[in-house]
Amino acid sequence: MTEENREYRQLPIGVFDSGVGGLTVAREIMRQSPNEKIVYFGDTARVPYGSKSRDTITRYSRQIVRFLQTMEVKAIVVACNTASAYALDDLEKEIDVPLIGVVRPGAKVAAEATKNGRIGVIGTEGTIGSGIYATYIRQIRPDAEVIQKACPLFVPLVEEGLWKDPVTDEIAMRYLTELIDIGIDTLILGCTHYPLIRETVAGIMGDHVRLVNPAYETARELKEMLEERGLSNPVFPSLGANPYRFFVSDGAERFKQFANSILPYGILSAKVINIEEY
Amino acid sequence: MTEENREYRQLPIGVFDSGVGGLTVAREIMRQSPNEKIVYFGDTARVPYGSKSRDTITRYSRQIVRFLQTMEVKAIVVACNTASAYALDDLEKEIDVPLIGVVRPGAKVAAEATKNGRIGVIGTEGTIGSGIYATYIRQIRPDAEVIQKACPLFVPLVEEGLWKDPVTDEIAMRYLTELIDIGIDTLILGCTHYPLIRETVAGIMGDHVRLVNPAYETARELKEMLEERGLSNPVFPSLGANPYRFFVSDGAERFKQFANSILPYGILSAKVINIEEY
Repeated sequence: MTEENREYRQLPIGVFDSGVGGLTVAREIMRQSPNEKIVYFGDTARVPYGSKSRDTITRYSRQIVRFLQTMEVKAIVVACNTASAYALDDLEKEIDVPLIGVVRPGAKVAAEATKNGRIGVIGTEGTIGSGIYATYIRQIRPDAEVIQKACPLFVPLVEEGLWKDPVTDEIAMRYLTELIDIGIDTLILGCTHYPLIRETVAGIMGDHVRLVNPAYETARELKEMLEERGLSNPVFPSLGANPYRFFVSDGAERFKQFANSILPYGILSAKVINIEEY
Repeated sequence: MTEENREYRQLPIGVFDSGVGGLTVAREIMRQSPNEKIVYFGDTARVPYGSKSRDTITRYSRQIVRFLQTMEVKAIVVACNTASAYALDDLEKEIDVPLIGVVRPGAKVAAEATKNGRIGVIGTEGTIGSGIYATYIRQIRPDAEVIQKACPLFVPLVEEGLWKDPVTDEIAMRYLTELIDIGIDTLILGCTHYPLIRETVAGIMGDHVRLVNPAYETARELKEMLEERGLSNPVFPSLGANPYRFFVSDGAERFKQFANSILPYGILSAKVINIEEY
């Protein structure tokens, strides 16, 4: 290993999302690749992405990628289903560092896991409207029946802290009933907030439905990709060297609060930047 | 009346909001001032404002005011509680056309209406965190006890169409119980979405609590201001001349759907503009 390569391998992973949801992906990367440094950006000024158009999401994602490149990242994880659905293909053509979205890894695992060929996908209106999960699933398993369902209230319920609550149960029941009736055996949690209400969803769907968490699968794919390309960081961060940096476009305090409720480590600081300048 | 003045009086009113909520204010203006033309802007790309910071809201509002000025408006209504709370004072110093926010008219009516001096205010986190309603109320009635309560789930519930629904009842009950316990006799619906769940709120609060709708009071204050300053449009729009124009920063179709569910007239079109350019 050359000295230059050794230095390059110690560069951070860029992770971005429309807001706090992508922290569930960052958490998985921390767990599965503890050597890797992370620069996280949450677009909290322009959240949510789920109800916005392809053009807008692509413009926003491009600005964020430009910001992350100023931070010298060696790879970028698009930890937002809507941005992965709308912007990933365009972004891949425009930059040199490897890009991983959350959609493809989740779709792949679901396509391989299903036995009866009926796969459910839940997500925001943007993700569901794009049909992106169905597209990727059918590339692997053309005969799969993909049943998609937008669940717009899940994000606000999670952000209000109602992770285990009768109201969330009731709303989840309404959203999920048609997926149960159709008899899916695999369900993709197609929004980064949803792992936080995984138990609620699991309770309603029952034991015979396998839940696929794209956050977990994405962190696994990232790890494999870094190893294959010789990009894994060989050095565990030294004591006192803060390996995780967080940036947001608004509301640093609010972001910190939420982050501290879901990450394994308390986050030290989140810095506000004006993303429109990138 | 000079010819020039007559032409000036026929200019439209600019109305803006973070998204669709301000349509409840536009609706009241249509009802109370049927001669007035309206140019509406909904910042649907950057909605919601309720959880964003003062700096961000002021920057966004300034861009929108610049856009509305290119449309030659004779007055501007800030039909968003959060923007009224955070940005109105700054904006008033910067422009020449009269500006009306939704907070002051609602606060005034509540301060005058209360008998026991206990006034409740419900709104987004931004509006409630700013304490703006309490500030205005105490300018008129210094001894008033103002009890404020953020209700972050009301906007997503309204936007999901659950205006009359057991889930909305349940959430409203949780938010409002402490206001009932304190014995308020007046409650300000401090978010432009809330008039759409007025009946739910009224049912929980009971007949003895007066609900104040700032959308209504703002339209009334606008009408009075236009009359006092000799700015009212003397001409009823001629048949076929579309008096209401709608602009958004994203998602025109979605906006039209929501608008058509709450406005008295079907809206003909909504045009997407890139607000970051202003």
